[in-house]
Amino acid sequence: MSKREITLDEIESLAVGAWVLGTGGGGNPYLSLLNARLLYKEGKRVQLIDAEDLADDAYVAVIAGMGAPLVGIERLTDHRVFARAARLMEEHTRRKFDAVMAMEIGGGNGVRPFLVAANLGVPVVDSDTMGRAYPEAQMTSVAVGDLTPYPMTVVDVRGLESVIDKVPSWKWVERVGRKIVVEYGSTSSTCQPPRSGAEVKKWGIHGTTTKAITIGHAVREAQRTHADPIAAILAVEPGKVLFRGKVIDVERRVTEGYLRGIARFDGLDGDRGSRLEINFQNEWIVARRDGEPLAMSPDLICVLDAVSGEAVGSETIRYGQRVTVIALPPPPVFLTPKGMEHVGPRAFGYDLDYTSVFA
Amino acid sequence: MSKREITLDEIESLAVGAWVLGTGGGGNPYLSLLNARLLYKEGKRVQLIDAEDLADDAYVAVIAGMGAPLVGIERLTDHRVFARAARLMEEHTRRKFDAVMAMEIGGGNGVRPFLVAANLGVPVVDSDTMGRAYPEAQMTSVAVGDLTPYPMTVVDVRGLESVIDKVPSWKWVERVGRKIVVEYGSTSSTCQPPRSGAEVKKWGIHGTTTKAITIGHAVREAQRTHADPIAAILAVEPGKVLFRGKVIDVERRVTEGYLRGIARFDGLDGDRGSRLEINFQNEWIVARRDGEPLAMSPDLICVLDAVSGEAVGSETIRYGQRVTVIALPPPPVFLTPKGMEHVGPRAFGYDLDYTSVFA
Repeated sequence: MSKREITLDEIESLAVGAWVLGTGGGGNPYLSLLNARLLYKEGKRVQLIDAEDLADDAYVAVIAGMGAPLVGIERLTDHRVFARAARLMEEHTRRKFDAVMAMEIGGGNGVRPFLVAANLGVPVVDSDTMGRAYPEAQMTSVAVGDLTPYPMTVVDVRGLESVIDKVPSWKWVERVGRKIVVEYGSTSSTCQPPRSGAEVKKWGIHGTTTKAITIGHAVREAQRTHADPIAAILAVEPGKVLFRGKVIDVERRVTEGYLRGIARFDGLDGDRGSRLEINFQNEWIVARRDGEPLAMSPDLICVLDAVSGEAVGSETIRYGQRVTVIALPPPPVFLTPKGMEHVGPRAFGYDLDYTSVFA
Repeated sequence: MSKREITLDEIESLAVGAWVLGTGGGGNPYLSLLNARLLYKEGKRVQLIDAEDLADDAYVAVIAGMGAPLVGIERLTDHRVFARAARLMEEHTRRKFDAVMAMEIGGGNGVRPFLVAANLGVPVVDSDTMGRAYPEAQMTSVAVGDLTPYPMTVVDVRGLESVIDKVPSWKWVERVGRKIVVEYGSTSSTCQPPRSGAEVKKWGIHGTTTKAITIGHAVREAQRTHADPIAAILAVEPGKVLFRGKVIDVERRVTEGYLRGIARFDGLDGDRGSRLEINFQNEWIVARRDGEPLAMSPDLICVLDAVSGEAVGSETIRYGQRVTVIALPPPPVFLTPKGMEHVGPRAFGYDLDYTSVFA
């Protein structure tokens, strides 16, 4: 039995680490971190449990914000709205949640389960369904596992509350949900289709909250001791440096409820004379070096500030930033043929066969 | 107490009369009529009751299809799907309906409550919330009365089922609902926000099912006896003939979940040398004769086949049809300043002050 209280310092690390695992998306965790500080100041504390400690029939909320990250930093959402999405699911399904987990460990969405858990008085499960962040609802381990794709709740700060009660497929929960989110203004709080304890044990991507805390702790310790934070990440995760450079151009637009575009980088140091381009849909999806594919989903492409080691998001990246781009290995569930259908380069519209950075 | 069984012959008349009151929209009633024939053949019978016979705390379903009428004749929906929208509302609100009523008496939506009632085993209330058809959810007597604008259910034939649980205003239930409907493919079955018996008594537009049956009966009797069906309508309703002519042009497009466009007519008989243009958004909204406003919402503009007296819908009107355009008086609830905000010409984007055909 591994149930332990998470300290505020760990949540500070979680915010840094989840932003790295966000691969550009999931939303900047800063706002969720402010909410967590507030809740801890009020005396709230949250427990972290392992998936294996869930009863098979436990009822688990899967939490995520849904929308375009750029909008999320303009229209602020507090912890009560995140919790409302879960409460609405409880009302609709007439069942109380026993625990909450992240849909995606990446970005602010890696921290939000703690805000919901503090409101509901239940623990957070140390698992998620992406092992990173992804832009669409069917890009999860539970969708790869063909688990039931409904119901889903979508709420916002103005009291807009919708329930997608049934859909014939995961693609449809994304399609209908996205249209609702766009009409809300491209930012919302959702409770994704609830999972049983047995489902989480079988299909969850485990230990990802702990992984994010570990990465964030490494970065913060390196910052504190004036060590190299990127080396510190690579000391705790089996990643690879892909490119060092500076941002020379960003094309960015909010479209269909996503933030889409291209970021371009000129090489520095050993990469001088080369150019990197990364296409994004909320998250960094495909990186090309001098026109040739260098890394692609499901590999994690992380654009990090070269000095602080903190992640740079697709909504905040800007001309002149000096960055180090690294790759981290993907969750194995996405490396199967079925997984590749959900999150391989073709799932994003790129006519590329997946080749691993780690092959 | 006025509760009586409606015969299939009355439903045949209802289909004709509701199509006249549909003012071009509400969907061609033919498909709903076929469903009603089927249900009556199976032995089902439906009772019609007056609003005053409802208990104050009765729970009343408000039924409507939502979408673009043109799509509704391509993707067919049967009575079980209409009923499913009401059942989903019962599940969501945990309460059984005591009766059903039409959101709009116009077009197929005037017949659908009978299909739902036959499935649920409850009576239909002889009232609706438009007294005609209108394209948007806030264009009702109950919205003019500022009654609660939620919840609403939206289902379709493929098993897509959504619930709009809360919204801050009627405009928002239309906005979110419309986006869901568009993603479904611009046709859907809905259960609008349920009403109490007391609300129906105070805000319903009463006797409209009976009115539609009366109009339809007059048209069918005139057809049977080779009399003038348009004169027959004007003998039972205080309407006015606006124009006689033939269709010379139709611009029509499905956009944002509505069917929008312009129909143009050249005058015949006493109107020879004049031209009529009618702008529509599902329903006929503003008619101009030689460029000058002739009739506009909330007055009912009815385009009728000059020979059969049957209504011509915005989705079926075509070049060469000979028509007589008549106006019928609007429900008084829409003539107040608040009513005019909801359904006056400016509510449709026309910079016109309402002037009545009947002033």
